[in-house]
Amino acid sequence: MTQNCKPNCCNSNSEKIYVKGTLHDIEVGMKEITLADKSLPKVRIYDTGGEWSANTKPDVNKGVKRLREPWIKKRANEGQTLTQMALAKQGIITPEMEYVAIRESLGHMKNGSYLITPELVRSEVAAGRAVIPANINHPEAEPMIIGNRFLTKINTNIGNSALGSDIDREVEKAIYSCLLGGDTLMDLSTGNNIHQTRDRIIRNCPVPIGTVPIYQSLEKVNGIAEELTWNIYRQTLIEQCEQGVDYFTIHAGLLKNYVSLTSKRLTGIVSRGGSIMAKWMIANGEENFLYTHFEDICEILAKYDTAVSLGDGLRPGSIHDANDQAQFAELATLGELTKIARQHNVQVLIEGPGHIPMNKIKENVERQQELCHSAPFYTLGPLTTDIAPGYDHITSAIGAALIGWYGTAMLCYVTPKEHLALPDKEDVRNGIIAYKIAAHAADLAKGHPSAQERDDSMSRARFDFRWNDQFNLALDPERAREYFGKSSHGNDFCTMCGPNFCAMRISHQIADEQKKHSQNQ
Amino acid sequence: MTQNCKPNCCNSNSEKIYVKGTLHDIEVGMKEITLADKSLPKVRIYDTGGEWSANTKPDVNKGVKRLREPWIKKRANEGQTLTQMALAKQGIITPEMEYVAIRESLGHMKNGSYLITPELVRSEVAAGRAVIPANINHPEAEPMIIGNRFLTKINTNIGNSALGSDIDREVEKAIYSCLLGGDTLMDLSTGNNIHQTRDRIIRNCPVPIGTVPIYQSLEKVNGIAEELTWNIYRQTLIEQCEQGVDYFTIHAGLLKNYVSLTSKRLTGIVSRGGSIMAKWMIANGEENFLYTHFEDICEILAKYDTAVSLGDGLRPGSIHDANDQAQFAELATLGELTKIARQHNVQVLIEGPGHIPMNKIKENVERQQELCHSAPFYTLGPLTTDIAPGYDHITSAIGAALIGWYGTAMLCYVTPKEHLALPDKEDVRNGIIAYKIAAHAADLAKGHPSAQERDDSMSRARFDFRWNDQFNLALDPERAREYFGKSSHGNDFCTMCGPNFCAMRISHQIADEQKKHSQNQ
Repeated sequence: MTQNCKPNCCNSNSEKIYVKGTLHDIEVGMKEITLADKSLPKVRIYDTGGEWSANTKPDVNKGVKRLREPWIKKRANEGQTLTQMALAKQGIITPEMEYVAIRESLGHMKNGSYLITPELVRSEVAAGRAVIPANINHPEAEPMIIGNRFLTKINTNIGNSALGSDIDREVEKAIYSCLLGGDTLMDLSTGNNIHQTRDRIIRNCPVPIGTVPIYQSLEKVNGIAEELTWNIYRQTLIEQCEQGVDYFTIHAGLLKNYVSLTSKRLTGIVSRGGSIMAKWMIANGEENFLYTHFEDICEILAKYDTAVSLGDGLRPGSIHDANDQAQFAELATLGELTKIARQHNVQVLIEGPGHIPMNKIKENVERQQELCHSAPFYTLGPLTTDIAPGYDHITSAIGAALIGWYGTAMLCYVTPKEHLALPDKEDVRNGIIAYKIAAHAADLAKGHPSAQERDDSMSRARFDFRWNDQFNLALDPERAREYFGKSSHGNDFCTMCGPNFCAMRISHQIADEQKKHSQNQ
Repeated sequence: MTQNCKPNCCNSNSEKIYVKGTLHDIEVGMKEITLADKSLPKVRIYDTGGEWSANTKPDVNKGVKRLREPWIKKRANEGQTLTQMALAKQGIITPEMEYVAIRESLGHMKNGSYLITPELVRSEVAAGRAVIPANINHPEAEPMIIGNRFLTKINTNIGNSALGSDIDREVEKAIYSCLLGGDTLMDLSTGNNIHQTRDRIIRNCPVPIGTVPIYQSLEKVNGIAEELTWNIYRQTLIEQCEQGVDYFTIHAGLLKNYVSLTSKRLTGIVSRGGSIMAKWMIANGEENFLYTHFEDICEILAKYDTAVSLGDGLRPGSIHDANDQAQFAELATLGELTKIARQHNVQVLIEGPGHIPMNKIKENVERQQELCHSAPFYTLGPLTTDIAPGYDHITSAIGAALIGWYGTAMLCYVTPKEHLALPDKEDVRNGIIAYKIAAHAADLAKGHPSAQERDDSMSRARFDFRWNDQFNLALDPERAREYFGKSSHGNDFCTMCGPNFCAMRISHQIADEQKKHSQNQ
């Protein structure tokens, strides 16, 4: 059951292959690249494209395959509890967990076990150190895991605002994100047609979907933050759980007393959800209702196995404000909420900043891991300088790679247009590739068992002048081809150095001469 | 004496200003940005554009102003020794050293002294921990310093190959590089008209120029490495010293015995100079003539105050080959050569890799500083993964920022087309901005006294919705304007969030309400 995969954005001489499970009747999709040198083994790569990267042609009006539906139905029929965390605590390895293990291992085994074992997946989920976002109403999502023992993941953000974009364009960006390697996707729409936009995205996305429910709640009160109520928020949560949202950003840790801690900041509160809740608290003189109703929230989420991503409403928005009292006060409260969520078997992610200079990044991971009981950290960048609008995919890829290496489990991408405008499709591409680079650099530094194979295959292809293999192994084959294609070149050198100055060509000659010399001796 | 500066690539509402020296009759150029909020002080930024960023219109046929000519003549008339290192060792603060101190301080003083004092500059140069590349025949170059107590610098590479580019295009790229912030420039031409291309670049560049003389030497023997001789190389050195080259990459540390250490590598020798010398040694069965004649080389260089940048001919070309025996064996020899060069008062830089995973970067700096007696480290990237051709400005900006923070003094840029093709002007732009970001992120992390002012000004402008100030303070004002300009927006929000979801706008409202509340109490 292999199929050709050649959409424009991943033209890589690869086939989609499916590795069968041993514990469960599952087939785990991944890609396999065939090299020009047939004596070398095919190279497997992690794939987030689902049906879109197979050669089936899904109908965007109907949505993609409901992969997990039979697993979920079976559990319901057997009267099992439905959250992955509860099952993991009971010692049960779900189909989702085996899927994740095979996927992370690229199907490779060592001593009869997958490189990443299903038992490791189960135990990390049970301990809350890893999260498998898997709303029972989003059976289209292929299981994936977020935790620092696993591959570093990336999240992409899309969504319209009151001033731009439409449904079709957002769905197109969502599919494009999956094809390019986005592991999860947040729909941050705040404009018209929020419900419909989200529905189309969920039905067409093979990756978990996240939202920030306060945005839609605010639309329901015509943008007047003061008029938000727990009841409106609660209804929004249920509406979105029913649709299949896999994780919610909830700014429940921003307490009333913390708002004044931001008064010495250069850039105040830069989280949209955080600023909305702060405004609500000041106007109403009450404690954050997301905090006071957190148990109620967990009860709702547990029914659907929607994970909570505890938002950092007080994340710093500038180098100046990094690692301040406001930021860390909120983080401590997120730790408190983590414990409550786990009691309800709700899986927890902790969101992190933002803007941080390199020398202050490590402290963020250390404090988060300690205060939040090793829950997976999920950071936005961080940007390591404020002075490069137009290039914030780069200012933040530096911080993202570093924080990934230090132990952050998922990196929320930043596009070149951050601080300037909504991203278009090309911005999404540039943001994703920058973050695939950061995540992979982190995986190499952490020594993930399946990370370096692709680098080594690339390097071997370089040394052998197998240009097509280099393109096919690249994160963005299309761009690599495009840049190379414009230049003239020979078979064993390229336009950069020309024939006389090609070090690799000379290296081959040296090896040949050394061989000759040793034979003559 | 202030002049408007508005070339296309740095449209930043800035003036070129000149700060006078106190020890010497010098005027140090820098830029000053006027903000829309006139109650805020103007923001000074380091400028590498020389006359090109002033509103004079230099004639490319005549070259730019010969700033240092009177200083050099005066020293010659007084019979002084000519290298900055020799003068520094004698306790003399040269005009170049004072220039550098004022430039690094952006003219700012604290307790009556510049933030970076002339004496610090002198003592670092005397100790060999910093280098001021300043060939007496390149008086057009504005003094700048490379050392880890100073701002992290970036180098850009341009140059034709046998297969591409011409003189005018290379000169245009060179000037563009200076305008965008390149601190030094290497002309790596290997094709036709090497001498003439270099001449035009040197006469028009206000930044130090580096070359790899073995390239031109090889052209003189028609590309046949085996036929290289010390005499041909020596003549090339003198020719280039006379032209005004400020530093030479010389692969003198690659010894004959080290070549076989590369046999276990995935990508062999990837340095062009390194591979040429390896081929010569194998073919002739002799030791590297750059090593055996290193004292002769130093004698030539000392006459012109051309610095030596000891090349890492065995730098790793892949993640697989990072930090291997070959690499570190050569590094130890570079340390030995450093001592010899210093005896001749020749200033020394040490070149470094290349391709290194993040977890192995620190070891590179630590070993280099120890083995090479704290000489400034000058690294190419390093790239932190091999799998992203087309985006190697990003794979390497991550490594560059990290290695800069750890203590590398100058970062050699990598463009998006690395491994694929020669860079065009847009690639030069993308490479430079990525490296300005990396260098600045490193300066922030290291706490350079003049680094954070620009970030704070940017953040303040963000919080105040002063859009034009944000563009003007950006590393690439033109691109920031372009991205913003395409989108619709209001005065106190933008297209990203729309009016209801603008956190900064809400932050202002919160601050207002808090004020009201406290007044009512």
